[in-house]
Amino acid sequence: MRCEVVAIGTELLLGQIVDSNSSWIGEQLALAGIDSLYQVKVGDNAQRMKSAITQALERSDAVICCGGLGPTQDDITREVIADIMGVELVRDEAIVDTIRAMFESRGREMSDNNKRQADIPVGAAMIKEMPGTAPGLLCPVGEKVIYAVPGVPYEMKEMMLGTILPDLQRRRGAAAVIRSRVLRTWGLSESGLAETLDARLQELDQLGNPTLAFQASGIEGIKVRVTAKTDDEATAFAMLDAEEALVRSLIGDHVFGVDGQTMEAVVLNALGQRGLTLATHESLTGGVLASRMTAADPDMVIFRGAAISPVNGEHVGEEGAISLAASTCEAFGTPAGVAAIAAEADENTPPGTVYLGLVLEDQQVGATVALPGDQRRSRDYAVISLLDLVRKTLMRL
Amino acid sequence: MRCEVVAIGTELLLGQIVDSNSSWIGEQLALAGIDSLYQVKVGDNAQRMKSAITQALERSDAVICCGGLGPTQDDITREVIADIMGVELVRDEAIVDTIRAMFESRGREMSDNNKRQADIPVGAAMIKEMPGTAPGLLCPVGEKVIYAVPGVPYEMKEMMLGTILPDLQRRRGAAAVIRSRVLRTWGLSESGLAETLDARLQELDQLGNPTLAFQASGIEGIKVRVTAKTDDEATAFAMLDAEEALVRSLIGDHVFGVDGQTMEAVVLNALGQRGLTLATHESLTGGVLASRMTAADPDMVIFRGAAISPVNGEHVGEEGAISLAASTCEAFGTPAGVAAIAAEADENTPPGTVYLGLVLEDQQVGATVALPGDQRRSRDYAVISLLDLVRKTLMRL
Repeated sequence: MRCEVVAIGTELLLGQIVDSNSSWIGEQLALAGIDSLYQVKVGDNAQRMKSAITQALERSDAVICCGGLGPTQDDITREVIADIMGVELVRDEAIVDTIRAMFESRGREMSDNNKRQADIPVGAAMIKEMPGTAPGLLCPVGEKVIYAVPGVPYEMKEMMLGTILPDLQRRRGAAAVIRSRVLRTWGLSESGLAETLDARLQELDQLGNPTLAFQASGIEGIKVRVTAKTDDEATAFAMLDAEEALVRSLIGDHVFGVDGQTMEAVVLNALGQRGLTLATHESLTGGVLASRMTAADPDMVIFRGAAISPVNGEHVGEEGAISLAASTCEAFGTPAGVAAIAAEADENTPPGTVYLGLVLEDQQVGATVALPGDQRRSRDYAVISLLDLVRKTLMRL
Repeated sequence: MRCEVVAIGTELLLGQIVDSNSSWIGEQLALAGIDSLYQVKVGDNAQRMKSAITQALERSDAVICCGGLGPTQDDITREVIADIMGVELVRDEAIVDTIRAMFESRGREMSDNNKRQADIPVGAAMIKEMPGTAPGLLCPVGEKVIYAVPGVPYEMKEMMLGTILPDLQRRRGAAAVIRSRVLRTWGLSESGLAETLDARLQELDQLGNPTLAFQASGIEGIKVRVTAKTDDEATAFAMLDAEEALVRSLIGDHVFGVDGQTMEAVVLNALGQRGLTLATHESLTGGVLASRMTAADPDMVIFRGAAISPVNGEHVGEEGAISLAASTCEAFGTPAGVAAIAAEADENTPPGTVYLGLVLEDQQVGATVALPGDQRRSRDYAVISLLDLVRKTLMRL
């Protein structure tokens, strides 16, 4: 099963927007075991769009077109797909009403342009998820299929997860129901994970179902995807639950979350459940931790604040980090505080050494980690390591 | 003149890395007036790479291949280009020596694998910039050309700016020397800029040289690119200088920087020149300002720190923001401090209203700005607006 991605929009070629949609779609396809061998960006030009989509459809079983479904004259994905299908576009008045109702619910009036978004190629179906005003399309072309989704990331993602991935899995036809779950891990390398799970991976190779796949995702950790193929959904979920329990029994608290849960969301949730609040001192991390926490907790209900200042020579080692964490608890009146300090490299201390400190009520926890070279990655890894330290300490409470 | 980009690497298709290189290259090509009509991602597979590069070369005058120049067995861009050129790869011992010297200067030994990086297709030339251990390649194919650059962003950028863009401009052949300069602006809309520069734009349309082009770049502001075509470099730079002076006389201090200068680098530089230091209170911006400033000033020499905490009802309006800025100056012992507060929306205050406050020695400056909807963009725009307020106030000292 092969599926290509065609990202549509002159702004992508001009570098005004980075095409992160194709990357996300590529990741989802890979996790679902679907090959994506080419991904193409093309501008809002009918002839070139037709050429790119046609070629992708020749090489693959399915094509996901992302973008060009808006209401303006340069949004021509609908027209180009109808052309490829060799059919007319027909306005679906029920969709016009749906779009009008969406505008009205936001206190705005629908312009005539938006009616174009209800134009559907004959033989195509509207994708049932419609978080914005642009309907997505599912367009059969012989045995193959073209999907069209908007370029707005959250709209695209909802359609991918709700309709396109299940439809692709159905088309692959291995089983009536394919469901999967991503266990998100931190703290083990990919080879470490493979080693820990080795016996189970060999068993699963024999069984063939469910399957386990790994994907290294930088500071998002390593994702372990469990996929179950069965005849009905209840059996699929039971199989996922059983496999998740088994994997967790082997790799334990390295699993920090499931599916879309981020490390910061998990930590905020764990703090909230225990009625705790957190503050941080940042020197090495320079505000990166605070900016992630406040993005997830904008009203700063649980993450109460940060002090960002350079550290001086008094603060060295894990003790220094713990003492900064403690003074941060005091300053912000929180029961929990964290800090990370970059070590000065010397003959006993390799470059990239970072000391972590955590104060959590009456506990004081220090840790020393070796982080990658450049400043930006070092900051990101220090942030995720600190959050993981909070998470693991909370789990042991 | 058309130039396509082929980004090479299975990790790009799997979404493990977002392909921001193609976006950056696309932006540079657009600013240089070179069309880039397709951009393709392809995995580390000889047959598919050959197919993607060959097709790109058929459609365009030039192709930039990004990635696949490393030392490992799956780095096969060199082999594929030699195949397309119909020539052999020959090991260049002088390049082997250069690579070995680079390893030695870092106290490491070159492995035998790295010698593969010195394999050059017959008839190709090495790109003179070589910031890493992977030489870039300039490979003529008839009247056309394939460039190969590493996927490491800073290595790719140095080769693009130093060799590839000048070579493309030379191939376009409009003039012996084409030089350009980007004036980076903040605070005017694209239509506002066009209106302010209208008379000059009409004059330049008649003259034909130099040219002005705009590019909206989100929170990086709007870029105004001046391009001069002449017979020699000195005349080109004189023309750029004259046009820059003219544009600045029309749009004044909306120009915050030139070429690669970021707003934070400009502000840090302006503070440093005056012997000033800065601290900030962040509530709305939640650490985004601090993380940008500390990335540019990791030792926190000029940016001395941030306090991140929620604001309470006492702090309202521009006065509230100024008072937070003042208490931040006191806390960090700095002569300059800034803060931004999100207003509560009511019948007189539209959603997205943000109050900015700046204290700079004995000056207190407040401002009210209307920022875009979602939290993430609102935070980013508040940060850049605060920095621009510091910049403009410093200029008037």
